Amino acid sequence: MGVMTTTPLTPSRGLNVLHLFCHVEHAVDRDVVHQAMDEGLAAGLQVVTAAVMGAKADLCFMVLGEDLWELRRFQSKIQAAGLVVSESYVSVTEVSEYALGMPEEMIKARLYPVLPPSDMTAFCFYPMSKRRGEANNWFALPFEQREQLMRDHGKSGREFKGRVLQVVTGSTGLDDWEWGVTLFGVRPDDLKECVYTMRFDEASTLYGEFGPFYTGLVGDLDEVLDATLA
Amino acid sequence: MGVMTTTPLTPSRGLNVLHLFCHVEHAVDRDVVHQAMDEGLAAGLQVVTAAVMGAKADLCFMVLGEDLWELRRFQSKIQAAGLVVSESYVSVTEVSEYALGMPEEMIKARLYPVLPPSDMTAFCFYPMSKRRGEANNWFALPFEQREQLMRDHGKSGREFKGRVLQVVTGSTGLDDWEWGVTLFGVRPDDLKECVYTMRFDEASTLYGEFGPFYTGLVGDLDEVLDATLA
Amino acid sequence: MGVMTTTPLTPSRGLNVLHLFCHVEHAVDRDVVHQAMDEGLAAGLQVVTAAVMGAKADLCFMVLGEDLWELRRFQSKIQAAGLVVSESYVSVTEVSEYALGMPEEMIKARLYPVLPPSDMTAFCFYPMSKRRGEANNWFALPFEQREQLMRDHGKSGREFKGRVLQVVTGSTGLDDWEWGVTLFGVRPDDLKECVYTMRFDEASTLYGEFGPFYTGLVGDLDEVLDATLA
Amino acid sequence: MGVMTTTPLTPSRGLNVLHLFCHVEHAVDRDVVHQAMDEGLAAGLQVVTAAVMGAKADLCFMVLGEDLWELRRFQSKIQAAGLVVSESYVSVTEVSEYALGMPEEMIKARLYPVLPPSDMTAFCFYPMSKRRGEANNWFALPFEQREQLMRDHGKSGREFKGRVLQVVTGSTGLDDWEWGVTLFGVRPDDLKECVYTMRFDEASTLYGEFGPFYTGLVGDLDEVLDATLA
Amino acid sequence: MGVMTTTPLTPSRGLNVLHLFCHVEHAVDRDVVHQAMDEGLAAGLQVVTAAVMGAKADLCFMVLGEDLWELRRFQSKIQAAGLVVSESYVSVTEVSEYALGMPEEMIKARLYPVLPPSDMTAFCFYPMSKRRGEANNWFALPFEQREQLMRDHGKSGREFKGRVLQVVTGSTGLDDWEWGVTLFGVRPDDLKECVYTMRFDEASTLYGEFGPFYTGLVGDLDEVLDATLA
Repeated sequence: MGVMTTTPLTPSRGLNVLHLFCHVEHAVDRDVVHQAMDEGLAAGLQVVTAAVMGAKADLCFMVLGEDLWELRRFQSKIQAAGLVVSESYVSVTEVSEYALGMPEEMIKARLYPVLPPSDMTAFCFYPMSKRRGEANNWFALPFEQREQLMRDHGKSGREFKGRVLQVVTGSTGLDDWEWGVTLFGVRPDDLKECVYTMRFDEASTLYGEFGPFYTGLVGDLDEVLDATLA
Repeated sequence: MGVMTTTPLTPSRGLNVLHLFCHVEHAVDRDVVHQAMDEGLAAGLQVVTAAVMGAKADLCFMVLGEDLWELRRFQSKIQAAGLVVSESYVSVTEVSEYALGMPEEMIKARLYPVLPPSDMTAFCFYPMSKRRGEANNWFALPFEQREQLMRDHGKSGREFKGRVLQVVTGSTGLDDWEWGVTLFGVRPDDLKECVYTMRFDEASTLYGEFGPFYTGLVGDLDEVLDATLA
Repeated sequence: MGVMTTTPLTPSRGLNVLHLFCHVEHAVDRDVVHQAMDEGLAAGLQVVTAAVMGAKADLCFMVLGEDLWELRRFQSKIQAAGLVVSESYVSVTEVSEYALGMPEEMIKARLYPVLPPSDMTAFCFYPMSKRRGEANNWFALPFEQREQLMRDHGKSGREFKGRVLQVVTGSTGLDDWEWGVTLFGVRPDDLKECVYTMRFDEASTLYGEFGPFYTGLVGDLDEVLDATLA
Repeated sequence: MGVMTTTPLTPSRGLNVLHLFCHVEHAVDRDVVHQAMDEGLAAGLQVVTAAVMGAKADLCFMVLGEDLWELRRFQSKIQAAGLVVSESYVSVTEVSEYALGMPEEMIKARLYPVLPPSDMTAFCFYPMSKRRGEANNWFALPFEQREQLMRDHGKSGREFKGRVLQVVTGSTGLDDWEWGVTLFGVRPDDLKECVYTMRFDEASTLYGEFGPFYTGLVGDLDEVLDATLA
Repeated sequence: MGVMTTTPLTPSRGLNVLHLFCHVEHAVDRDVVHQAMDEGLAAGLQVVTAAVMGAKADLCFMVLGEDLWELRRFQSKIQAAGLVVSESYVSVTEVSEYALGMPEEMIKARLYPVLPPSDMTAFCFYPMSKRRGEANNWFALPFEQREQLMRDHGKSGREFKGRVLQVVTGSTGLDDWEWGVTLFGVRPDDLKECVYTMRFDEASTLYGEFGPFYTGLVGDLDEVLDATLA
């Protein structure tokens, strides 16, 4: 890659988010992965690394940053290291329309999260949308009803405080579902219990549509590479 | 490729449009990509180049032109350069039946758009259809009702003027969905806000069906190749 | 392949039809493709060749003939030439139950079509079925109602006479959808306008289910190979 | 493979059935295929061989036998010969709950069929399930109603006696659909006419869900290899 | 892989479960597979090995253990041996909310199962969810009704005691479906009869959604490798 002279492309506020789910198919050059990581951090990116269980991917990089060009360059560098990006998700951090009244500090925490949380190494990502079915259509509900349903849903989620951290990023117009949900849990069954419990909230029961779930373990880059490269 | 002697195959008015979403799997010969580009432009094609985020593709060529054979030749040339065309979309520019009364200049702008718009480097493509569900069936509505719904939908879209340019091309009978939508935005969250807002228009809420979303960054060919080739 | 001694397997009337959508992934031996073509024609097959736009395929062979073994051999020969058959469709020519009263000459034209029509180089193929939904179920309608809906649908199609030739072949029990539709058009937007217009016919609005659309350009074998091989 | 010492795994009555749909991607060693066949027959397996039309597969082995380990070994041997098993179906022969009163000889013919039937070389396989829709739910019907619908369906099928032989095997709990249907026909359009006609039976119209259809030609192993290997 | 120093990631009670469905695509190093097995057992994992029928996979490793990092390492080791993990399932053992009153011994048997059961070599895995349809929505039912439906469902399952052992593990928030079901049967048709019979239970008829079914044969590692490697 030559000298980068592109004009930064940034959200008006908040961060671009890119989940990269990678397979180890060929020889992977660990040094080049480390170099991609170092250059990404130097360019202002945050990168969460996780080993992923099963066939969907071997490892995941969750990348956050202001300039979308830098996120794309990070992707190209890990591809050049030999990793195959098999699945991905594109989103931006956001404050939902139902949470606009939050204190400024909480708004900032949503727009500029600092990840990963410490001592929460159980990892899960899934995308979701709100149903637009012929009987149950979220987008046809009045704002007040949606707000109430989301308030109840949030309350149910907060019961897992300390066990699960939920990071919801917006992707309508950017990827195939309307939101990306990244969960960090203390234990694997915390993730399960949290998602299972929330499925009984009316917001999910009647209106939630869920995409594929990716489950793994957060670790530093070497822990993740040790666990997934032979 | 030998001497090209095919009879041009052109729309009765407007342009053929081909979105090519490509992966870098093998060595890519940058010179051959440049040559394909130069020959395409010389043959009268417009080509928008974009880097694409994530696993769906590494880069996109949106090609517009009169002779469909020339679009196909462009595709073959970039394939010969080593790019793998993983996804694509085939459509034609059109003036919808609900917009026939527009001034001639606007009609010409839709049939013969000049792309990309300047200073809008956030890029997104998705295909869509109108629902033919058992309860909500767009094609069973009377023309006047469809026209009114589209007028409201257009109004909602125009609120993003200056932030998002929408290029809607027709693909019924040409590809798997009825329309292709290409968005150019000032910032990534402009794309998100525009599509999210319009999802509350009745035309989308009750009748919109959306395919996969491809998100990226518009740049000139070298910027795009620099960002995606290692 | 050794000496062919299989007993011919033929429809009781009409022709077997095989659409082969091929990718150029490896080196293709043009001579072997030509030889497959020559041997197929010598064995009584008709073969329409088309370049296909985009990622679904690079080229299409639409093969018609009496002995199904000959169609299969043709397929094996083009595979041996290096083409990869990525998608396909299996059907037979037929006269629908709603058209049994047609003059003998028209019946013969449907069972033994002569393809491609001259001066119609815009090409499109898609499979379709009639809906068996819980509210709208084509197969639960009485014959008279189905006949009337098909008569209206045919009328709407005939308005494109001279611009679009429709070849509908039957595939219930042979492939994943109930019919294969091959369109030949004068221009690309003729295909679009025809399919879009017919989507407002009640037979399509309430009962049509459509599979993937493949769009391309009819040419002789060398034109098609010139446009798709580099 | 070493000396086989596994304990046979057999159905309590009837036979295990395995449909293997194979692609010729690499060099195939015909001798090894023949050897797999010979060893399978020696181990008591029945094997129907068919050439398959189009992209789904090049050839099919329909294998029937008592010991499931032997069926798995047969699969491994043809894979070792270079064939790629791309699709498959796992089932067992059965007598349906609606046919328990049949004469013993007919029951035996269903549990231990002798295949292929002579002079029926048109071949088709598809899996199917009974609908569990919100309005039409087969499994919510009383036994008597299901029995009557199946009796009507059987009557409609028997009108094709001599033209089509239907082999229905059970796969609930074994593969993705509830039944596998293998048809042997005198001519290709017999398959089509039979399946199309039965689609108007209430058992299919309201309750049938159909998977992919694989169509081909039954022949002995050499005929099938001759037609599909170049 | 270097020295493993990760902090164990364990469920608060019960075991992590990972089903790995593998293809033999390249040369497989049997010694390395054995070594992975030995190291896994030494690290406290249970591993059930099965040969799988047909195209979905050649063999399956069902792995259970406390530390999720150890399960991931096991996966990496068999990948390093040359096996390709094509499909998988991630879950945890659990005691369902409808079974909390069970005697402690039965609770322990569910959380810490000892597998495989002896003399049950017919193997089947499938994932499932409860329907959230617009008419039939499991999660909208009151607890008492769900409990009653599950009690009836359990009764129906217990009629297969001695013929089929059912292991249900929880995966909401961990994989694409809400539960993974692993069946061990005395004979292949026991699996079929059990699943078919339970499909008439209201819990399944109205509310069950089923994913892909994987069928195979339990054996020790050498039996499984003998049957699937050539």
